[in-house]
Amino acid sequence: MTVHLVGAGPGDPGLITARGLELVRSCDVLVADVLVAQELIDEAPEDAIVVSRAGMKQEAVTRLLVAYGTTGLDIVRLKGGDPFVFGRGGEEALALAEAGIPFEIVPGVSSIAAVPASALIPVTHRGVSDRVTIASGHGADGGEPDYASLAAAGGTLVLFMGLERVEQLCRGLVAAGLPASTPAAVVSRGTLPEQESVSGTLETLPELATELESPALVIVGEVVAVGASLAAAIAVPAIA
Amino acid sequence: MTVHLVGAGPGDPGLITARGLELVRSCDVLVADVLVAQELIDEAPEDAIVVSRAGMKQEAVTRLLVAYGTTGLDIVRLKGGDPFVFGRGGEEALALAEAGIPFEIVPGVSSIAAVPASALIPVTHRGVSDRVTIASGHGADGGEPDYASLAAAGGTLVLFMGLERVEQLCRGLVAAGLPASTPAAVVSRGTLPEQESVSGTLETLPELATELESPALVIVGEVVAVGASLAAAIAVPAIA
Repeated sequence: MTVHLVGAGPGDPGLITARGLELVRSCDVLVADVLVAQELIDEAPEDAIVVSRAGMKQEAVTRLLVAYGTTGLDIVRLKGGDPFVFGRGGEEALALAEAGIPFEIVPGVSSIAAVPASALIPVTHRGVSDRVTIASGHGADGGEPDYASLAAAGGTLVLFMGLERVEQLCRGLVAAGLPASTPAAVVSRGTLPEQESVSGTLETLPELATELESPALVIVGEVVAVGASLAAAIAVPAIA
Repeated sequence: MTVHLVGAGPGDPGLITARGLELVRSCDVLVADVLVAQELIDEAPEDAIVVSRAGMKQEAVTRLLVAYGTTGLDIVRLKGGDPFVFGRGGEEALALAEAGIPFEIVPGVSSIAAVPASALIPVTHRGVSDRVTIASGHGADGGEPDYASLAAAGGTLVLFMGLERVEQLCRGLVAAGLPASTPAAVVSRGTLPEQESVSGTLETLPELATELESPALVIVGEVVAVGASLAAAIAVPAIA
């Protein structure tokens, strides 16, 4: 009847929403992103058609949704994170709307806060940061991002990017005016059992992050130091 | 055994995570924010101790969590949105860590994308915006926010604020250099049945928003026009 654009959350299958899980469990067709947990795909009914978008370009996925959308079947498009946060859900929704196919957006837990949280880093913290800027670690054309405006943003930066660009990014932010001593962290595979993170400064981060794997988020700002305090407080048991 | 800091999501009770709901259903003590849906509070076991934080200052809530945390009971602290996004969860976590009390962060769906999405506005959209700045609509001291850096941020602005400040905010952003014709929207009570939204420009928004009620989010940027296109496409049925 409808195409449901559902956020699967940041990785941990327990972080899908209750409503999203209910839709997966009753769908006729499930079209899932590559990074969606197998545990969630396994929740689809046994007779559901399950399509992985592995190897498909966005345009092909959109065409597929429109094609299935005209069948009258109940379709769940399960997307990593949140459909409307770096998820290209807007493009899928527009194509469905233009084809006259009813659709619904079911938000998900985005990586932008859940991944830092999985390394104990709050993206906002009273007296430390009341602003968060979320951006891609590369420009719209695949080139360098606009370092000047990122460095001037104030508050916390959360950057989606390939780990091969961490060094360029840290250098770019320092060249644009952020102190080399600004706290910075990389969280790799956040919320999953394989999660790893490193925490340092814009100067030390590239060296620290060499062993980590994608997908990863870079977090820049004083909240990274809050996360480090939190980790240190846990490590030292309180005296009873 | 542990204090679980759980995000309840943006309002719609179906948008809590599967893991969060499981924890609520098995807790001994539930400490819930005022805006958390009654349906979620009703999910706690019949013999659970349920505490509303209505009328409690943050410091009192934190003390309460530490006090319950030493009892060995299983405690769920259910917070609106996500605990680490304007949720002061970092303060609660630090207090627990310093007291030697084990805790866990269970992220939630934040309002920052779910509320715009409930009005069909994607906070990022290919070719339109690949950056999102989330900020409070007032400064750290309760005064005016730093309009200059907000106006220079580029991409989408998502602002938490009281509706009584919409006019000041729009004027402040225009005075700081954003065109008066910049698309802007207010979404009131997003994701709930009572949801209402208005969409216009920085010039027209204050007049449009006069009838809306808090809590509300202000969204500024070209993605608001994407939302309007989406709404228009839905309104016109496609020719079969």
